[in-house]
Amino acid sequence: MFANTPEPPYWAVIFSNQRTAGDAGYGDMAARMVELAGEQPGFLGAESARDGDGFGITVSYWASEEAIAGWKANAEHRLAQQQGFASWYAGFALRVAKVERAKVWQRPEQGDAAGQG
Amino acid sequence: MFANTPEPPYWAVIFSNQRTAGDAGYGDMAARMVELAGEQPGFLGAESARDGDGFGITVSYWASEEAIAGWKANAEHRLAQQQGFASWYAGFALRVAKVERAKVWQRPEQGDAAGQG
Repeated sequence: MFANTPEPPYWAVIFSNQRTAGDAGYGDMAARMVELAGEQPGFLGAESARDGDGFGITVSYWASEEAIAGWKANAEHRLAQQQGFASWYAGFALRVAKVERAKVWQRPEQGDAAGQG
Repeated sequence: MFANTPEPPYWAVIFSNQRTAGDAGYGDMAARMVELAGEQPGFLGAESARDGDGFGITVSYWASEEAIAGWKANAEHRLAQQQGFASWYAGFALRVAKVERAKVWQRPEQGDAAGQG
């Protein structure tokens, strides 16, 4: 699903990760994190994909660095309450980036004028 | 697969896209684009995931905005020679962002000292 972000500038947190085998509470945590992000001030949306080998990329979009800092404090607090974090991932990369330019294209669908332009 | 990027700052091109059904030359094009990116000055690496519903995220990393501009000109030239572009995607978002901070973690494997730290 595409994030309906405003005009740049805004911020992106790019989280690339390789999941280990098995769930071990990961699904529940991930669902809570999505819910938590949605409640966070400055959250603009997120996009996520994971392939069949367990490699995934989640990009969340934020209005400001302050919003990311707020989210980070909140998320780390919640994750610290979890036992499983170290077991969920074989590796990850977390990158914080300022989005300078964006281009969005949606194929116009018959009878649907909801394209983002 | 993780991109082995240097210390920030560097640049990211975040390409989120929803594939249409069927290949229609997409696989060949995607393979050529990966090869082409690897030959491009300033290319630092890329990470990619696509889920079972055809939603994918590819993030490519670049040393500078100039490197992205060079890649863009080259890629658009190649894509213009293709007939299929508009048919491959139901939608996409292309965002150019400057990576300010990064944290990488790899699980140390038994007998493997290749972790990125």
